[in-house]
Amino acid sequence: MKFARNAQSLDASYIREILSAANQPEMISMAGGLPASSLLPVQLIRATCESLADNHHLFQYGSSQGYEPLIDTMKQQSQHSDKPWLICNGSQQALDLIARALLEAGDNIVAEVPAYLGALQVFQLTGATICPLNSDTAGPDLNQLEDYFKHHNVKLFYCVPDFHNPTGRVWPRETRIAVAQLCRDYDVTLIEDAPYRELRFAGEQLGYVSDLCPEISIRLTSFSKIGFPGLRVGAMNGPTAFITIAERIKQATDLHTGIPQQAIIHALLNHAEFEQHLTRLRRGYQERYQCLSRELTQQLGDQIQFDTVEGGMFVWLKLTQGDSAEIAARALQHNLAVVPGAAFYPTDTALENHALRLNFSNTDPALFPEAVARLAKAL
Amino acid sequence: MKFARNAQSLDASYIREILSAANQPEMISMAGGLPASSLLPVQLIRATCESLADNHHLFQYGSSQGYEPLIDTMKQQSQHSDKPWLICNGSQQALDLIARALLEAGDNIVAEVPAYLGALQVFQLTGATICPLNSDTAGPDLNQLEDYFKHHNVKLFYCVPDFHNPTGRVWPRETRIAVAQLCRDYDVTLIEDAPYRELRFAGEQLGYVSDLCPEISIRLTSFSKIGFPGLRVGAMNGPTAFITIAERIKQATDLHTGIPQQAIIHALLNHAEFEQHLTRLRRGYQERYQCLSRELTQQLGDQIQFDTVEGGMFVWLKLTQGDSAEIAARALQHNLAVVPGAAFYPTDTALENHALRLNFSNTDPALFPEAVARLAKAL
Repeated sequence: MKFARNAQSLDASYIREILSAANQPEMISMAGGLPASSLLPVQLIRATCESLADNHHLFQYGSSQGYEPLIDTMKQQSQHSDKPWLICNGSQQALDLIARALLEAGDNIVAEVPAYLGALQVFQLTGATICPLNSDTAGPDLNQLEDYFKHHNVKLFYCVPDFHNPTGRVWPRETRIAVAQLCRDYDVTLIEDAPYRELRFAGEQLGYVSDLCPEISIRLTSFSKIGFPGLRVGAMNGPTAFITIAERIKQATDLHTGIPQQAIIHALLNHAEFEQHLTRLRRGYQERYQCLSRELTQQLGDQIQFDTVEGGMFVWLKLTQGDSAEIAARALQHNLAVVPGAAFYPTDTALENHALRLNFSNTDPALFPEAVARLAKAL
Repeated sequence: MKFARNAQSLDASYIREILSAANQPEMISMAGGLPASSLLPVQLIRATCESLADNHHLFQYGSSQGYEPLIDTMKQQSQHSDKPWLICNGSQQALDLIARALLEAGDNIVAEVPAYLGALQVFQLTGATICPLNSDTAGPDLNQLEDYFKHHNVKLFYCVPDFHNPTGRVWPRETRIAVAQLCRDYDVTLIEDAPYRELRFAGEQLGYVSDLCPEISIRLTSFSKIGFPGLRVGAMNGPTAFITIAERIKQATDLHTGIPQQAIIHALLNHAEFEQHLTRLRRGYQERYQCLSRELTQQLGDQIQFDTVEGGMFVWLKLTQGDSAEIAARALQHNLAVVPGAAFYPTDTALENHALRLNFSNTDPALFPEAVARLAKAL
């Protein structure tokens, strides 16, 4: 059996490998990007699950675009109601459909680096090249971005402006305006991936970047962080010409996203207590973040440095010394799973050897003192 | 926004377009490939649906390979238990993963023609070329197949040996043995797509072709025809090296197939009354086929010809005169939806202008006299 070249180039995800190790009983895992299992809003979908078997029509083939009531819900929440939606198997599939609709071998795309490698992987599967964009707490380097747009014939710019994975950063308002203008000026498609946006527990919520350049932007919505990752339902919103092509690819790929799972997400989003659930979730994550933050400062002091985060699931921990891959390996021996910074850089990119990503959403707050003590041993 | 060339080449599926038209209230639709809505085994999964919300762990992220209890069920049913399984979003996604794992632009593949276009489309998306293989009631033309294998450096052979879509044909035993031997002799990967296999209502069940050449074969299992198409769950079985690559692509594509939907399929397959459900389904389809067959013979006589089918969902109706695309269009005006033969031929292939595919699985048997009367008007 001979395999396609691009397929062979695909490594198993380092993070998902760590996740397997993280399942061991004594392990404290801060490696994944899992929402808190204890805060999954199962009570809000109980009635819908109980009546599923009475709704035969949900179990028959459905439409490639998605379950109509769910699409209606998404439209109602949109500022640009003329931009159509496509329901996908999680926003991960939206990334794959974008890659297949837009990219060809030799195309250039820009992405903030470090980045969510699950996105870069699907872009690279098409043979596209990633132009790595530097960023700091003020957002991406706008001069570098314009330089790429001007000289590298860039097809799309992939970004996570709210609670970026792995850095936890949020773009300030003026950066959002400037990026939207640059995308317009150079006719570059903006891909705004917003899975963590609803997880803000401090500070002020800012507008979507994609709403500032609706005609050239695609937005990804995830129901995995505010709802249920296990169902694999997400959505994407973009210009009609794009959604038409993406829907055809979706149809060829797997016909449509399953209907019962879309009906469950629809019920969740429309439940009277959904806002209360979000409030509870944000408070829960704030408490976890505060515990972690306190322990890091108290136990590790000047061995580490990290920027305050106002939401999301991650802290990007910078080490004043030591190689982060070695430290992560040692932490694993002490039954603590964390991801070294190198896992968030595409191959052949200059990388940060002194950072770790710590996930705080799926760890019991009472465990943080012990988790950080284990990290201290590894350091 | 500039689209990728391959993506633009993808037409909306003709069949799914017809399906939209077929939703109108007065329409009798024999166009789709839908299982009977009235025979969906919802009673067998009622208890599982009712207890879903009590099983938090089903709603968290899961494994890319699939839900372990479902994989175990699949293994128990396999003759070659050392060949691993991968759970997919319907067997349609299995086709897409096969295409992406194995095919590159310029590769040649062989497929029986006419064929299920949903398969050919995903193969063509990679830039592969289809070598069309003739077949009749004795199965594919073995001389032509060997000729392709010998002279065209063929990468894979895609086939539906049981109740082929659209022809309804079954390969005889000696054809199965010969094809498996040819694939071995020329080291060509055999893709056995078997969505209709369990729908046999007459004649003798024959062995899988893939079991005759396990080391170079991949088998696709669908739960859409015996279970619930709306859930989008299917499975694929192949050599370890292949499943490893396919699982990585699956991970990059959408992380994993949703867990609650896999738990529902697992419950269905392990339900004490599952075999009774299959018996009821087969009897129901036999009754539908017999009604349709009788009406066709009585009302249309020598205007048509068709081979007896022993299972599946389709009759391949040959017309002694007239263009089938025109007749299908006229039938639609008389509120009958059927698919003209041309829809099952890849572009640039000599095609059958005098055939219609009639689906009998999702039409109330009492409606066949009227359906065939409408077809008679169109003829």
